[in-house]
Amino acid sequence: MTDLPATNLTMLTLVKPEGELEVFFERRPMPEPAPHEVVVKIATTPINPSDLGLLFGAADMTSARASERDGLPVITADIPEVGMRAMAGRVGEALPIGNEGCGVVVKAGSSPEAQAMLGKTVALLGGEMYAEYRCLPIQMVMPLPDGTDPVDGASCFVNPLTSLAFTETMRMEGHSAIVHTAAASNLGQMLVKICAKDGIPLVNIVRSDAQVAMLKDIGAQYVLNSSDPDFQSQLVDAISETGATLGFDATGGGKLAGQVLGAMEVAAAKRMTTYSRYGSDTFKQVYIYGALDLSPTIFSSRAAGLSWSLSGFLLTHFLQRSGAEVAGRMRQRVIDELTTTFKSHYSHQISLTDALKMDVAQAYNAKRTGEKYLIRPHG
Amino acid sequence: MTDLPATNLTMLTLVKPEGELEVFFERRPMPEPAPHEVVVKIATTPINPSDLGLLFGAADMTSARASERDGLPVITADIPEVGMRAMAGRVGEALPIGNEGCGVVVKAGSSPEAQAMLGKTVALLGGEMYAEYRCLPIQMVMPLPDGTDPVDGASCFVNPLTSLAFTETMRMEGHSAIVHTAAASNLGQMLVKICAKDGIPLVNIVRSDAQVAMLKDIGAQYVLNSSDPDFQSQLVDAISETGATLGFDATGGGKLAGQVLGAMEVAAAKRMTTYSRYGSDTFKQVYIYGALDLSPTIFSSRAAGLSWSLSGFLLTHFLQRSGAEVAGRMRQRVIDELTTTFKSHYSHQISLTDALKMDVAQAYNAKRTGEKYLIRPHG
Repeated sequence: MTDLPATNLTMLTLVKPEGELEVFFERRPMPEPAPHEVVVKIATTPINPSDLGLLFGAADMTSARASERDGLPVITADIPEVGMRAMAGRVGEALPIGNEGCGVVVKAGSSPEAQAMLGKTVALLGGEMYAEYRCLPIQMVMPLPDGTDPVDGASCFVNPLTSLAFTETMRMEGHSAIVHTAAASNLGQMLVKICAKDGIPLVNIVRSDAQVAMLKDIGAQYVLNSSDPDFQSQLVDAISETGATLGFDATGGGKLAGQVLGAMEVAAAKRMTTYSRYGSDTFKQVYIYGALDLSPTIFSSRAAGLSWSLSGFLLTHFLQRSGAEVAGRMRQRVIDELTTTFKSHYSHQISLTDALKMDVAQAYNAKRTGEKYLIRPHG
Repeated sequence: MTDLPATNLTMLTLVKPEGELEVFFERRPMPEPAPHEVVVKIATTPINPSDLGLLFGAADMTSARASERDGLPVITADIPEVGMRAMAGRVGEALPIGNEGCGVVVKAGSSPEAQAMLGKTVALLGGEMYAEYRCLPIQMVMPLPDGTDPVDGASCFVNPLTSLAFTETMRMEGHSAIVHTAAASNLGQMLVKICAKDGIPLVNIVRSDAQVAMLKDIGAQYVLNSSDPDFQSQLVDAISETGATLGFDATGGGKLAGQVLGAMEVAAAKRMTTYSRYGSDTFKQVYIYGALDLSPTIFSSRAAGLSWSLSGFLLTHFLQRSGAEVAGRMRQRVIDELTTTFKSHYSHQISLTDALKMDVAQAYNAKRTGEKYLIRPHG
């Protein structure tokens, strides 16, 4: 068994009562695995949009400043009053960060099941991945096929399972096509590949012609640029052709979710043969699963008719609702298609301490979706 | 059998292709009942907010002008371009109006079931009630107990069934308390009485101290005035005390629906023992069932956490979903409690032609919820 160092460098995020966010490193004691736990040496861990809510919270990142403590980087930022109210539950508690990652089991608890994992490359889910090591119960650890590149194993859960959850939701709730916003994202590219493979009509909404070209390159059929002056009528046409009555919106704020609902209603009303003051009977569902746009959500409920729903979507809640069998099937597909459908592309690979440099914080704060960072704690 | 006149004075609403709304009267031929139909002499028919969508549609009622044709009143108004798009399906087609009413069966088709209805006082649902007579299949007609005052029978369906549908929805979807906006309405008063009788905690939101006093007078426990400066914190307190996770919003536009969702999330987060960046696991549902506020709906999806839904609500869709047994039970309760729980109060009783006078149109356009009109076509 490898001799492990005495400490485990871990990134922490802290909301201070005086209205300041501090993200910093701490050398924590190396964890000792319980009988059913393993210690994994983290090889790779991505920075996902879903990590940022915890990492930077409701701080005003335009006020962010860099400093050093014990030779390690620190980022500090002011938190507006409304942000402090939203984060009241975490004041004074330094929280570890990082939803998922990949690494090698370097120490195992005494149970035979844990011992059997020694030396295996595994994917991990469960927070606290922005660290050198992570100790987890074995059920939170998913063994990957021999020879898996840890870069390919870094993002096995959040984006793959969320994009699969979209198509599972479509089937569970009786829809037959999907509209997806911010579709050029890592997750959006996976969804394009899943839908192409499974024959599911998908309307992708992106924000630039370069993103249109990129998604068409990987096989997308419908890709609309929301900056086009005739975007709304293009959207109605694409929804009419595909029959999409289900949408997933990563932006959250602004008008886009409402535009999708409205276009679905226009498409549904076109199919009606008699006038109804209430609009169509077609049920239209848009789920908000992200918050790329932090401004308020604005929409016309009347334009959506009377049979519609706008709801929050969280992978955890979906998995609770769908049950173990569906979750197991989804995980198996991720492993089977890890280097094809679910391959992630990273624009930057950085060290753990470099992840707390200002340029990284600012890239994420600017929501430049083309940039995707992979942390490699051991280089 | 009564000799019926040859014609039936009927109110019609017409959207003209040049962008003008015209509401007028037509003397239509008296209908002849088919074997399973009856002709009802309309005694009373209310003007409900739900009638106005068809009556005035998307016309700009500030441009409304009165005229006369054949000695009968006509109201004309301009329709803005966006309104014409919304009403494209009804251009050129003069549509009769009036969702519900009460009257006496004066002629019946040849079937024994129809003949058995002759002379009975009945409540009616099915449109086209703003007329002197209405011919309907017998299943659209609900016999009322002997001696029922037609004023009490006028509003047996829309408000009673909608308010009952709110409590049925609460039980079907696993909630235990309700938040209701625009709660001083006729429907809101019924809901107060239903909830008091059934022991359902109800948080009423109104817009003035006079409305607070009025609802407390009829037994409401929680009544909040949204004009109060500390309304949002009062709302959190009332939701915390009642545990309400279901809301019904009649305003539709503006911030109120979102404020209710946000307050439900704050109340739910208060009950949490550990911090979660995603907010509470408590599912929160607000249904929009009206459009008193025609401005866009604005809300913060992040303030609602990730387990929430904002949806359209229409009585017809609810009845389809809940099935015949629930609908039958609801109707029986309306008849049983017609002069208590479901008693409507009318501020004005007017003739059919007076219903097309400017003061009525303007009262409704101004959404003065204290004014409620009852049409008595035969005086």
